[in-house]
Amino acid sequence: MSQSPVMLHFAQDLASAERIAQAAGMASAPIDSHRFPDGELKLRLPEHLPEHVVLLRTLDNPNEKLVELLLVARTARTLGARHVTLVAPYLAYMRQDIAFHSGEVVSQRVVGRFLADLFDAVITVDPHLHRVATLQEAVPVPQAIVLSGAPLLADLIATQLTRPLLIGPDEESAQWIAQAAERYGFDHGVCHKVRHGDREVQIALPTLDVQGRSVVVLDDVASSGHTLAGATRLLLAAGAATVDVAVTHALFAGDALKVIKDAGVDRVWSTDCITHPSNAVSMAETIASALLALHD
Amino acid sequence: MSQSPVMLHFAQDLASAERIAQAAGMASAPIDSHRFPDGELKLRLPEHLPEHVVLLRTLDNPNEKLVELLLVARTARTLGARHVTLVAPYLAYMRQDIAFHSGEVVSQRVVGRFLADLFDAVITVDPHLHRVATLQEAVPVPQAIVLSGAPLLADLIATQLTRPLLIGPDEESAQWIAQAAERYGFDHGVCHKVRHGDREVQIALPTLDVQGRSVVVLDDVASSGHTLAGATRLLLAAGAATVDVAVTHALFAGDALKVIKDAGVDRVWSTDCITHPSNAVSMAETIASALLALHD
Repeated sequence: MSQSPVMLHFAQDLASAERIAQAAGMASAPIDSHRFPDGELKLRLPEHLPEHVVLLRTLDNPNEKLVELLLVARTARTLGARHVTLVAPYLAYMRQDIAFHSGEVVSQRVVGRFLADLFDAVITVDPHLHRVATLQEAVPVPQAIVLSGAPLLADLIATQLTRPLLIGPDEESAQWIAQAAERYGFDHGVCHKVRHGDREVQIALPTLDVQGRSVVVLDDVASSGHTLAGATRLLLAAGAATVDVAVTHALFAGDALKVIKDAGVDRVWSTDCITHPSNAVSMAETIASALLALHD
Repeated sequence: MSQSPVMLHFAQDLASAERIAQAAGMASAPIDSHRFPDGELKLRLPEHLPEHVVLLRTLDNPNEKLVELLLVARTARTLGARHVTLVAPYLAYMRQDIAFHSGEVVSQRVVGRFLADLFDAVITVDPHLHRVATLQEAVPVPQAIVLSGAPLLADLIATQLTRPLLIGPDEESAQWIAQAAERYGFDHGVCHKVRHGDREVQIALPTLDVQGRSVVVLDDVASSGHTLAGATRLLLAAGAATVDVAVTHALFAGDALKVIKDAGVDRVWSTDCITHPSNAVSMAETIASALLALHD
């Protein structure tokens, strides 16, 4: 039984797992997954596991994957694992952090506790934390590690545009805008957003001259696309020369990509936290560094 | 805040919930469920809950429903519930009760423990327990209550056929065949089954004269339909006059109903544990009695 850590992954995450494991100098091993006709999953892990096990699973479309995490984490411990780390480049259910109406499920808290019962450490990228300050408040594991895609997106933007203007589509994006802008001294600003329901969004641009500028709208996640589309329309109406979009998490639910293209977005760049044709930056090295620090 | 128990249910279970709640003299209340474009669920419970709460959720296609159970059970306790009962007429993941190959996830144990962490009591109907003797071994809740659909299916069969012959398609069905047969003194027997993979099944009939008989193949669950189809073909080849099917759980995954009809099955009867056009018997009274006994 080897005592160097192993990264477990599902078949569809093979490429990401190999990138991260290689960068971290770890072994990787597949989890066999079979689906019965009635929807039940039958999973098989390697028969012997080292003390340190890492499970890679990004949590877009999260519900079935949460059941996978339950089955894998519990079984890993019966096969020799003593410290199990979840690498979830995209972490689901972080946005429902308060009951707006009494009786509403505060999913962040419930899912966070569920994950904390299963894992010793969680590594994620740009979790959508709004009213809680740290990941550990939402996911109370001993080691809750937050990485950011903003620096690598800034590196990419620096190679693509001269004197870009970075715009955050709402106040919540200020943290990522600041990180990305300071790296190269980019001009930057943040919109004000008022949300009505899932898909209706009102936005006001910051007081900045966008006339003739190459603008990049940068955010943690593109979900319905309506926030990004709203900002793009205002920017083009205010005279921006071009609007590109850069996001950490390319959720792009439903027709979201069409929604932002129709609004006039030129290029779309994302990290590989969620596999998508827009992926332009890999988080593998960043995640690998976090894993190496964790296992030291 | 009322202290009489309430039954919570999702919109698609409204009819079942009302049947059971009415029979038990309980109130029922819906859980609002909204699905975000990215697949996340947003649930809302009644804002005040009594001490005793019952959640009705039958667990066919179980994965997303297991996440619902997590969200509801944890939130119910923050809203006043102190004793939460799961009524899962069909209980999933009970068949994977052993690792046939090392490294395989023993889902029964993991899901059983997951449910036991959430609920104080579990009520189910004819769980597919094979190598464990009691539901409580699989789902270690303080109160693990097993009901059976076999007596009500026997009642139905008695109204439909004269001198029926009850046949179980494999040894595991012997318990239900015995229950159903003894109620009316029906002739009965059980096939021997050898399974190769998910869909391949070999069967041998019991040594009984089936010539000219009205046979009912009775089992706990119809899943792929291949076991029932195999038994039906052998029975008709051996001279059975007719073959009908009676099952507690009408899973009927994929083309299962066509598979058994093609094999020559005439009528299909099931309980309403899983909603299906073949439902002919309601478990509502039986479940209500168990709830009344539980809350006494």
